[in-house]
Amino acid sequence: MRRDRRAFVRRGALLGGSLALLRAGTAGASALSDAKAVAPANTALETIHQLRTTHGNFADKQVPEDVLQQILQASVRAANASNMQSYSIVVVRDPALMKQVCTYAGPRMLLYCVDHNRLKATAEHLKLPYAPGNAEDFVTSCVNTALAAQTAVVASRALGVDSLVTNGIHRGDMERVWRLLELPETLCFPLIAVVLGYATEEAPQRKGRLSGAGVVHDGKYHRLTKDELDGLVRQYDDPAAHLGLNDSWRSEGRQHYLEWLFGSWLSRSAKPTTTETQMLRLLKRSGFIEPNA
Amino acid sequence: MRRDRRAFVRRGALLGGSLALLRAGTAGASALSDAKAVAPANTALETIHQLRTTHGNFADKQVPEDVLQQILQASVRAANASNMQSYSIVVVRDPALMKQVCTYAGPRMLLYCVDHNRLKATAEHLKLPYAPGNAEDFVTSCVNTALAAQTAVVASRALGVDSLVTNGIHRGDMERVWRLLELPETLCFPLIAVVLGYATEEAPQRKGRLSGAGVVHDGKYHRLTKDELDGLVRQYDDPAAHLGLNDSWRSEGRQHYLEWLFGSWLSRSAKPTTTETQMLRLLKRSGFIEPNA
Repeated sequence: MRRDRRAFVRRGALLGGSLALLRAGTAGASALSDAKAVAPANTALETIHQLRTTHGNFADKQVPEDVLQQILQASVRAANASNMQSYSIVVVRDPALMKQVCTYAGPRMLLYCVDHNRLKATAEHLKLPYAPGNAEDFVTSCVNTALAAQTAVVASRALGVDSLVTNGIHRGDMERVWRLLELPETLCFPLIAVVLGYATEEAPQRKGRLSGAGVVHDGKYHRLTKDELDGLVRQYDDPAAHLGLNDSWRSEGRQHYLEWLFGSWLSRSAKPTTTETQMLRLLKRSGFIEPNA
Repeated sequence: MRRDRRAFVRRGALLGGSLALLRAGTAGASALSDAKAVAPANTALETIHQLRTTHGNFADKQVPEDVLQQILQASVRAANASNMQSYSIVVVRDPALMKQVCTYAGPRMLLYCVDHNRLKATAEHLKLPYAPGNAEDFVTSCVNTALAAQTAVVASRALGVDSLVTNGIHRGDMERVWRLLELPETLCFPLIAVVLGYATEEAPQRKGRLSGAGVVHDGKYHRLTKDELDGLVRQYDDPAAHLGLNDSWRSEGRQHYLEWLFGSWLSRSAKPTTTETQMLRLLKRSGFIEPNA
């Protein structure tokens, strides 16, 4: 059953290159040398391949209320542990508030929070004990929350709505998010925001993605070879691959994009973090790190 | 711009009830009293509403290699912070191994790991400093990883492949996952597994979801009232809502489903966790909690 890893990775790269060109009805059969089953023309796959992040250039056009409701109803369809839906979605409609919350603004914003307060309140209502809040609960609920957020992103695209998924809520003073949206101090943690609207212009070029060695591992985890590392550096440098955030590295006189990424963009990460991050401090305050541990 | 919250929640519930009945061409316009824009027939939205979790009843039918590759290529299309793709996807093809890893088995399994090793190895290859691994890096990468996983789930459904998203990798001795798949001990954390295959039978009934008060909050976070809490208890008890995991609560003589959920299913969570969970211990070992913090 185990296939040769190199062939696997090579074919992945081939498909990656060709999928962008797929259109309904053709389904890329010609790009596959040994396809055993040909995918039917499929709008959902096309929708996923159309995903683009809209950075701040949302038009002054409202997202209709029924479209927003369809996005929310799709979002909750994501799988979640024990169907407990340990998250909350706060719909923000005020762009000024949005900007304070996540530094971006658009017609609508969905703030996705890990949240056990509904469950806890329901348990207390029934006079039943329920004391969630350790690291396990946080990680499981993080996954629940992000699965729901991505489902909203795909549903939005399906409804013609552009989106921006942002960690912007973690920039600067995070406590502002609790304060501005009146989040419960414990058992609630703002994870990610999805800004919704209509882009003023088509995104110039879809970002590239790595999908070979180092990202997809066949059978078990694969440690990268020197050749594969060279290959990754080259992929990031290739203008046609569109993997980089921008071209600053060329004007900065760097030899490689990754030199700019590690040297400029992520220079903060050049040294290990020894003091407590805001994130850890607020995870502790929220009760998502078991005490005395 | 702010709408009345009650009307908002009420309409959400209405849409939740009606969306399951939507079919191409009708698009539920009749269910909306004040729709301003009617969604076109849309395969991607239908795909999301078709999502079902397949629990262990996968047929002995292989997932064709090109279908698997299309799922992987779709998965990496999810948005991710700074396009760093701080995750790894391990494709498991051996059902016996799968069972050891996540307690479930099917034709294929995708193990999604938070992973900074590719980035770190690339930085070292270029002789650049890069020292990720604090709680911020973990939370951001958790989100990246789960967004990619959910994109694989939707893409799978679009290709006719059923799936099971499972936290099973966190059950029992988690270190087995590192050992069995030869994961790096540091900067890599197995988050979630997606088992892929073809269900032997149609799932009996799509699980229900909450989508009103307590899940969706309009404008800012809303604390539940006693009436709303009663409403939640009733929703879980309603056989037509399909919110519960099973009907054990009736045979156990409980008055409400949530009594079974909190009293039996989650009895472990009745008391706060005071000792360190396995999850926290392994987050520390992986370097995803800043030291001395």
